[in-house]
Amino acid sequence: VSANPPTSDVVVVGGGIIGLASAWRARLRGLSVTVLERRAIGEECASAVAAGMLAPVAEAEFGDAGRRLLELGLRSARLWPDFAAELEQATGAEVGLRRNGTLLVARDADEARELERQLRFRQSLGLQVRRLAPSAARELEPALAPTVRLGLEAPEDHSVDPRRVLAALRHACELSGVRLRERAPVARVEVGAGPRVTGVVLADGSRVPAAHVVLAAGAWTAEIDGVPAHARVPVRPVKGQILRLRDPDGPGLLRRVLRFEGGYLVPRGDGRYVLGATVEERGFEPHATAGGVYELLRDARELIPGILELQLEELSVGFRPSTPDNLPAIGRGTPSGLLWAAGHHRNGILLAPLTAQLIAHALTAPDRIEDRRASLPAELEGACDPLRFATAGGLPTADPPGPPVGVHS
Amino acid sequence: VSANPPTSDVVVVGGGIIGLASAWRARLRGLSVTVLERRAIGEECASAVAAGMLAPVAEAEFGDAGRRLLELGLRSARLWPDFAAELEQATGAEVGLRRNGTLLVARDADEARELERQLRFRQSLGLQVRRLAPSAARELEPALAPTVRLGLEAPEDHSVDPRRVLAALRHACELSGVRLRERAPVARVEVGAGPRVTGVVLADGSRVPAAHVVLAAGAWTAEIDGVPAHARVPVRPVKGQILRLRDPDGPGLLRRVLRFEGGYLVPRGDGRYVLGATVEERGFEPHATAGGVYELLRDARELIPGILELQLEELSVGFRPSTPDNLPAIGRGTPSGLLWAAGHHRNGILLAPLTAQLIAHALTAPDRIEDRRASLPAELEGACDPLRFATAGGLPTADPPGPPVGVHS
Repeated sequence: VSANPPTSDVVVVGGGIIGLASAWRARLRGLSVTVLERRAIGEECASAVAAGMLAPVAEAEFGDAGRRLLELGLRSARLWPDFAAELEQATGAEVGLRRNGTLLVARDADEARELERQLRFRQSLGLQVRRLAPSAARELEPALAPTVRLGLEAPEDHSVDPRRVLAALRHACELSGVRLRERAPVARVEVGAGPRVTGVVLADGSRVPAAHVVLAAGAWTAEIDGVPAHARVPVRPVKGQILRLRDPDGPGLLRRVLRFEGGYLVPRGDGRYVLGATVEERGFEPHATAGGVYELLRDARELIPGILELQLEELSVGFRPSTPDNLPAIGRGTPSGLLWAAGHHRNGILLAPLTAQLIAHALTAPDRIEDRRASLPAELEGACDPLRFATAGGLPTADPPGPPVGVHS
Repeated sequence: VSANPPTSDVVVVGGGIIGLASAWRARLRGLSVTVLERRAIGEECASAVAAGMLAPVAEAEFGDAGRRLLELGLRSARLWPDFAAELEQATGAEVGLRRNGTLLVARDADEARELERQLRFRQSLGLQVRRLAPSAARELEPALAPTVRLGLEAPEDHSVDPRRVLAALRHACELSGVRLRERAPVARVEVGAGPRVTGVVLADGSRVPAAHVVLAAGAWTAEIDGVPAHARVPVRPVKGQILRLRDPDGPGLLRRVLRFEGGYLVPRGDGRYVLGATVEERGFEPHATAGGVYELLRDARELIPGILELQLEELSVGFRPSTPDNLPAIGRGTPSGLLWAAGHHRNGILLAPLTAQLIAHALTAPDRIEDRRASLPAELEGACDPLRFATAGGLPTADPPGPPVGVHS
């Protein structure tokens, strides 16, 4: 692969947190990296809408896929403190990592029974959780309604402010020499002899040559042409409506992330709160609805009556990039030189540091044997394999590795 | 008073519907008129937030003040069709006058008992109302919930689109030669020998000379200095939150204006709806709140479950200009040359044609005897008298009329 100036080692398609984190990590390993973002950074982007929970324990779900997602989440949650510190050191910006834990609460007897089941499930996995009687829950968070029936604390489930992370990543990318192009929508991946990717073609017809292309375009990933049908990751948008509130009296109403059947309330620590989120299969339908907003407020006020006093600053709609098994696609695809960092569903913020690390490794350690510490156990790697959706009759998933990429420091 | 070019016959302070309608009417009588608006037309202005109900019958209230407001409302409602037609003819714009009537509904037995009382009250005043059993109400408006307990139809209570009215009035003013100055906040009324007003002084210190000054600055009217304390109209802001919804399937959900305990839903006829409004004594606190939005949606969905499917397009906050008796201040004040068109509380859109007519008459028929047809009966005139709040020890309210204004056609 030539390393002529106009050809990047890597083109990352998508300037959300996944794309920027991957680009930054790849650049820190000496690769030349270009990020192509269809809009402006933060504009129409799930990262700018997300609440920012880093909550693998609270999110843990039954079943095989649930267990694998939990494993991925725990790994990435462990990376977050260093990732945040490094990002803050590189840019001088705060990213709003708050380590106050998460509280799951039940409003009635049915929800309490379910929460007990969730408690036993987490204990059986050795996860750090604590059962809280209503009085104990209200001692931790006095704003909780007296009707709360049961609480479950996940003291290691934290949160971060994704808008700050996005701004810091942008800055870190610029400082490290990543080339950032906004309003540069990608129409298709370009494939040459081999077959092997040779870059991408923008909507305006211009080419951006590259040795590797990382698809990190969130819910819009599936709109990028040029990938053989049998090797595509079926990413679809799952609409979420989310509210941003502000307490005119400043912080203090709620300290921990609060989770409940149908939603969550995330304090930012400065009197601002994020209340989310609906889960709607409506494609890219971009409007907030009376019903979505009503149900979020109704559920939250049942638990925290005081939220009715808060200012309603923003209604947003975001699109989660979801896959059929709700697990992400991270790593190499087909043809050679194509990588996926997509399909993170509800877990993009949590999984960003791990995804960026895996993508950087895949770009620089093509046979994956020289760098065992950073790679995943086979089972988890399979769970994230972009080719797991490959249809029968497609290419073999054991795609031969491409040539190593030249390192430019 | 000199009529030199830089001196207007009239300066109107405030570019809302009341101010613009008064300016337009005065200009059509040949006066030279300048309107001074502190922001842009339609920006931070109750007219641009209002739902636009023309509903004196639905709004009728017990008591003396209620009866007088009803009288004023009925008179202005009768002026609306011609006013709208004239405005549309002058500008070629539609103002969205919809003559589909209003439906008051009760959700439970208590509300139904109260609605029966309201029905008898209106019948005793000879107002046109019709009692509707739940089935009849749902026949008129099939989107009503089956739980509706009683309906009351006011077939002559209509609605208009205030944003269209505002835009049309602006255009009509410009076409007729009213001078319109935006971003021109008025600091104080200027008073000269007599005493008599000589114009206003803007926040930037510049003077705008005029023979007459009409205060029509809505909730901000009380912030204008220079009026003797004993002769001020005590206008205060009463905050309202209001939602704008849109049906992606177009019009059809609701045809009539719907009113219920705590709110109203006004169809615009094109799939858009206005859902209002909270009533809050919070001064100029400009934020939408979680509680305000929640309660509007909760009440409306109880009656029209289908609203939950609508898109939520806009949350707005407006400030009603309210007086201690909830009646407006229309006409001459003290000192000579000062007029008030303020304090319209919840009734500014309804009362705009009547207010404009009264102001134009007061400006051109100073002794009010020459033009009896347009003036109000003494009782109603007293109800709107800007000097009714004058404190003891102030000037006598029988202020001698100023000199007649020269007419420039």
